[in-house]
Amino acid sequence: MTRRTALTSTTRLEAFSDGVFAIAITLLVLEIRVPPIQATANGRELVTALRELWPSYLGYLISFVTLGIMWANHHSMFRYVHRSNFHFLLINVLFLMFISFLPFPTALLATYLPVPDGRQAATAFYSAVLFVIALGFNAVWRYAVHGDRLLDPAADREAVKTISRRYLIGPTAYGVAFGLAFVNVWASLAVHGILTGLFLVPEHRGWLSSGA
Amino acid sequence: MTRRTALTSTTRLEAFSDGVFAIAITLLVLEIRVPPIQATANGRELVTALRELWPSYLGYLISFVTLGIMWANHHSMFRYVHRSNFHFLLINVLFLMFISFLPFPTALLATYLPVPDGRQAATAFYSAVLFVIALGFNAVWRYAVHGDRLLDPAADREAVKTISRRYLIGPTAYGVAFGLAFVNVWASLAVHGILTGLFLVPEHRGWLSSGA
Amino acid sequence: MTRRTALTSTTRLEAFSDGVFAIAITLLVLEIRVPPIQATANGRELVTALRELWPSYLGYLISFVTLGIMWANHHSMFRYVHRSNFHFLLINVLFLMFISFLPFPTALLATYLPVPDGRQAATAFYSAVLFVIALGFNAVWRYAVHGDRLLDPAADREAVKTISRRYLIGPTAYGVAFGLAFVNVWASLAVHGILTGLFLVPEHRGWLSSGA
Amino acid sequence: MTRRTALTSTTRLEAFSDGVFAIAITLLVLEIRVPPIQATANGRELVTALRELWPSYLGYLISFVTLGIMWANHHSMFRYVHRSNFHFLLINVLFLMFISFLPFPTALLATYLPVPDGRQAATAFYSAVLFVIALGFNAVWRYAVHGDRLLDPAADREAVKTISRRYLIGPTAYGVAFGLAFVNVWASLAVHGILTGLFLVPEHRGWLSSGA
Repeated sequence: MTRRTALTSTTRLEAFSDGVFAIAITLLVLEIRVPPIQATANGRELVTALRELWPSYLGYLISFVTLGIMWANHHSMFRYVHRSNFHFLLINVLFLMFISFLPFPTALLATYLPVPDGRQAATAFYSAVLFVIALGFNAVWRYAVHGDRLLDPAADREAVKTISRRYLIGPTAYGVAFGLAFVNVWASLAVHGILTGLFLVPEHRGWLSSGA
Repeated sequence: MTRRTALTSTTRLEAFSDGVFAIAITLLVLEIRVPPIQATANGRELVTALRELWPSYLGYLISFVTLGIMWANHHSMFRYVHRSNFHFLLINVLFLMFISFLPFPTALLATYLPVPDGRQAATAFYSAVLFVIALGFNAVWRYAVHGDRLLDPAADREAVKTISRRYLIGPTAYGVAFGLAFVNVWASLAVHGILTGLFLVPEHRGWLSSGA
Repeated sequence: MTRRTALTSTTRLEAFSDGVFAIAITLLVLEIRVPPIQATANGRELVTALRELWPSYLGYLISFVTLGIMWANHHSMFRYVHRSNFHFLLINVLFLMFISFLPFPTALLATYLPVPDGRQAATAFYSAVLFVIALGFNAVWRYAVHGDRLLDPAADREAVKTISRRYLIGPTAYGVAFGLAFVNVWASLAVHGILTGLFLVPEHRGWLSSGA
Repeated sequence: MTRRTALTSTTRLEAFSDGVFAIAITLLVLEIRVPPIQATANGRELVTALRELWPSYLGYLISFVTLGIMWANHHSMFRYVHRSNFHFLLINVLFLMFISFLPFPTALLATYLPVPDGRQAATAFYSAVLFVIALGFNAVWRYAVHGDRLLDPAADREAVKTISRRYLIGPTAYGVAFGLAFVNVWASLAVHGILTGLFLVPEHRGWLSSGA
């Protein structure tokens, strides 16, 4: 069965990945709950309740932009990767398993950020999931480029090397965010914020930079 | 790395945007809750309970049609915009962040519209989110057309200018709806209803008019 | 602006519709709730609790197959309809508004079917929504074929006429189901079951028959 | 009406199936609930609560990888199946009905796995649904290949026969898992784990092996 080892094109893998990214990113909003009517005896109290949802807004913002960046980078990866095989498909499915898991740690973070005794564990958990996502992203990329396995033969090898170096920034930064969670929660969240913010600055957009 | 500044095509951006629009619009229904059995001791009470869900139906109607219009306009934008770049992708992701946020203010509005002390804050919040969405839509469009940055070289420049003027109606109207929320909630909602209704009248469909 | 009245192709409308259908059909499962642990003191009680979810399974079955049929028919419609315009897009958005609304009446039906005093209202509501969906489907089709407005010039006019007649079966049958809900709930549900079952019988698949 | 029996291409069926797979796989995360704040008086208790969610993580893992495998196999099926007809569409819709049902038994399993009196029923239910999914997958495949009904004329008939034999492993293994649930829950879950794990081992990937 030579078909089994055939290198097939990436079209449907890209479409499936796009679907999972689009759905995971849109499900994030479901974790923001409308304040119950009982809790808001008058209009001012509703405004207060809406303000107190700031951890939900913050979690939504960070996770949405992070998934948006991941999607853009996953998308642009296929400017270099032109073929697929069974193991590449598998690694992608495992990567997507963590992508579509993100709404859970986001909701956890939003729930426990205002709780002094819970925010450390929640921030560490959130950072750990993003660390695994960043590792997964590297695994997808490195499997494809190792020995030019699935690369477009015409791909610029220097650009590929540059991208490979840049992608290391992700796991490193999220590893730091994970460690910082045990020292100072806000310092850990600041790393997340900085990574999100880097996206806005073309000159320093680092590992995010291959986004098309 | 000339690739990084390359102007790439818009196909996957359109597909991703379509996905987010389709998911956000379909998630709206999840905010309509089945009346609990306890509350309805007999059939007539269920009918009453279903009638009392009118704010949920209204929110669903306004938000669905609004997202439908936004999708149609975003869609038709790409009859003029034929290229993409990193910043355009970024602005689109931020725009989609508010599009996929809409189920939350819709649920908030549906919950607090029957509550005299809460409806003002809820209507203002809902209008504010739509104001930001309309601003975001303008940002996407204006970034693409500024200095013909991402325009199809063959695009009709007069049509582009007309569209640019029309798109200002959105932020203006939603700004008015936001201000009116503090004066009279029903007047504010009337603006939303009128904007939705304009869609039905070809001669006056204003900023909605470039829908294909 | 001749562009505004231009007849554009249907590709993205089809993709957006497919998305809404696929999401609405998949969201149906969210309405089936896991029995709470408290309610099930031992294994036998969990089996009983799972059996008592039969209205949820039934609602899932009917709504899933109905949406599947609708999707197949909407899909096959575009073998004849080759163009689009602003009003066609609008009618489609309104049609999709009721398609993506279906999880709510499905959950309502599943909740109130075991409640003697509530099942009539729930069945009538469910039938009414499907009646409107069937009307909407006819509106989409009839707008496109009226005066050959958006038809493929090569479309077989006899086939179009046959389809137009067949599509009347939908609103008629759902209208009957709505009326029967006030006489006998089970008779009304039988009509839904028969319509679903017709799909399985090629010789009698009636208005469903143009599905490719 | 010769059109009704026409053999049409599979493009939109594939796209619709991809959508349902992508949505069902992403909805799995919604069944993992954030531990309520009341239950966690201090940070250590949150860590404990997060650990106690292991049945949810396990269910998510097994169901995600299983759906991923199913998607990959459904996907690769269309390297051999190049045409569609009414009944093939119907069988696919019924198959997808069970695919998109999977989040419910997954949540059931996660909820009742820690409950000694409930875990047997939950594991049996979960295995039964996967048994039906595997049967459905076989039905889709066998309908298409029976008498070369919808096969690409150029398809390798030996490969088709090999795949047909391999696909029998699915219903067999899930049937065994179902039976084992009544003997020993953990043995039943081990079968699920082994099936998931086989995916990782190319030499033994059995019925999973036609994945592209």
